Amino acid sequence: MNAVYRLEGPAASIIVKQALPYIRVIGESWPFPVSRIAFEARALGHHRRVAPQFAPELLHYDESLGLLVMEDLRHFRVARHAFVEGRTFPHLARHMGEFLARALYFTSDFYLTTPDKKALAADFAGNSHLCQTTEDVVFTGPYGDRVLNRVTPGNEAIVAELRDDGDLKQAAAAMKLLFRSKAEALIHGDLHTGSIMATEDETRVIDSEWAFHGPMGFDLGALIGNLFLAAISQPGHATALDDRTETASWALRAAADVWAHFSDGFQHLASDHESEFFASDVFSRIDRQAVIARHLDSVFTDMIGFAGAKMIRRIIGISHVEDFETIVDIPTRARLERHALRTARRLLIERQNVSSIQKAIEILQMEAD
Amino acid sequence: MNAVYRLEGPAASIIVKQALPYIRVIGESWPFPVSRIAFEARALGHHRRVAPQFAPELLHYDESLGLLVMEDLRHFRVARHAFVEGRTFPHLARHMGEFLARALYFTSDFYLTTPDKKALAADFAGNSHLCQTTEDVVFTGPYGDRVLNRVTPGNEAIVAELRDDGDLKQAAAAMKLLFRSKAEALIHGDLHTGSIMATEDETRVIDSEWAFHGPMGFDLGALIGNLFLAAISQPGHATALDDRTETASWALRAAADVWAHFSDGFQHLASDHESEFFASDVFSRIDRQAVIARHLDSVFTDMIGFAGAKMIRRIIGISHVEDFETIVDIPTRARLERHALRTARRLLIERQNVSSIQKAIEILQMEAD
Repeated sequence: MNAVYRLEGPAASIIVKQALPYIRVIGESWPFPVSRIAFEARALGHHRRVAPQFAPELLHYDESLGLLVMEDLRHFRVARHAFVEGRTFPHLARHMGEFLARALYFTSDFYLTTPDKKALAADFAGNSHLCQTTEDVVFTGPYGDRVLNRVTPGNEAIVAELRDDGDLKQAAAAMKLLFRSKAEALIHGDLHTGSIMATEDETRVIDSEWAFHGPMGFDLGALIGNLFLAAISQPGHATALDDRTETASWALRAAADVWAHFSDGFQHLASDHESEFFASDVFSRIDRQAVIARHLDSVFTDMIGFAGAKMIRRIIGISHVEDFETIVDIPTRARLERHALRTARRLLIERQNVSSIQKAIEILQMEAD
Repeated sequence: MNAVYRLEGPAASIIVKQALPYIRVIGESWPFPVSRIAFEARALGHHRRVAPQFAPELLHYDESLGLLVMEDLRHFRVARHAFVEGRTFPHLARHMGEFLARALYFTSDFYLTTPDKKALAADFAGNSHLCQTTEDVVFTGPYGDRVLNRVTPGNEAIVAELRDDGDLKQAAAAMKLLFRSKAEALIHGDLHTGSIMATEDETRVIDSEWAFHGPMGFDLGALIGNLFLAAISQPGHATALDDRTETASWALRAAADVWAHFSDGFQHLASDHESEFFASDVFSRIDRQAVIARHLDSVFTDMIGFAGAKMIRRIIGISHVEDFETIVDIPTRARLERHALRTARRLLIERQNVSSIQKAIEILQMEAD
């Protein structure tokens, strides 16, 4: 989407990211506001304040050039690329759970005062063009016969069925409504596995230009949905030496661990901090825990629905992912994509009845050929 | 809260409303931002655009003086005062249902584009001091031992029970969370029966200084909760000539009719207007109706919960209402207030299981002594 440069000198290297007034990979035919980089700078600033170990260092920001200078994560790998190669990261799930707990809690209604929360939400209201793009490419476009949508040969029938599936489209519209109206926290807004860089020991979240005050479940759903895609696509990358069952199992475990660490972390943060929301002369510790637990149930349901929507859009929409695109045998790719589509459809439609992350994983396993 | 003057001349009269930097009835000890009148002017402007027959005419607005000049509704009665006198209005419920359908639909995600919706929500973010006040006086304060709270003699025991009732306080906190995070439409923000003026034929909504982008169910809940208070309090106003059973029945029917007219009106508006939300190449008429119906189910549940919260706060919080305050026999007043409290508690706690407005009315009738 942007122009990204690595600048190297004898002592060090840095990354320069410049927003162009259009989407780079598509060209000037798709104009896109440069202001997005101002929102990225603000969101990154927030991440650095509440979870500095999980966000790249911001070295410089030039508003007039639409340009960010950041630390060079040269020893890091983009998580999605690594998964395609069969590589996994022992701490990534825990790190992401912690990152999300902190990034979301400290901008939530449970922590911020009302004026601070509303001011923060208003600060990001101007990023609406990116929100509108998400609404179109995630919740709407994949279900229409749009020029830029792409379908793997062999999957025409299932895609036609999905585009004619009222229950599915109604579920997608319901999730779009939540995306538009649930102002729960400052979310990253595009937290798939391509926005995560990792090493054996460290994890960084990048590319937060889609940030706005939205539903917590959207970030979580993007992440676990993309971990599900990583898991489902693994057989397409099997070799004689590695059948990839380990990598696939790891990705499913990682999805479960992200939720567990997020949920634990959020509950701990809410117990540890006094706040206006839970005035201590009124609400007991038990009241507080019960309200947070019920909130997390609702975030969980949203996460499952958003995961389904994000999986579908990566397979039948305009923006596909390397997990499947690099599978050279087309019938295999098509077959695994159908597995992902059936799983995602059920997650979206059955989200209210998916009671645990284990149940979601069971659905995924049940829908394999 | 404000200074309100009637200016009369030989030809006509007008109303001048000036925001003071504090709450008038309390005094300078409770500072309150004058900016609220700017938000009232904007909200009133919106009401005049989408439902001109239900909002007073705005003749002049002076920002520097914090002053609104409006038409004088001299032949109108404040609905709450009229109910205390046993008077009812044949068209009020239908008018309010229509008003709410139009005021809420035209600022909802189903009608506005994403940038327009986010800009509108951001425009009202500055009214956060009033939101914060609502959060305190409706969802928090009534459940604490606060200096300005007031309890009718004889009700000390039930109030102590309510303040120790974890389920109830958790339900109140859950509704507070929705009030803070559900940005569904530009709501009036204080739509009780004291904000409605009526004649036999006409209805006007006044005092929209609490407006912000919030949950649709809050306006609906304020209105039906206050109609329930009107109904429950009627026996306290009985005389030898009028036992007030007619007025009480009318108030319950009015609550049911408000919901029916709102719900029908909203569905019609959503069917009649094309919008970005329901891109016509993707969503069929049936999809659209199903999504709107599910949305209205969620608004209904919110309405029931907000109604309960608003009823409780008027009886054990800092701001009581004429419906009960004018009942001179204290034991009668206390008894009727207990009826309202028991009803409200059940509405709040059981809101997810209250499937229709008739069920809510049955709860109210069941909880009578």
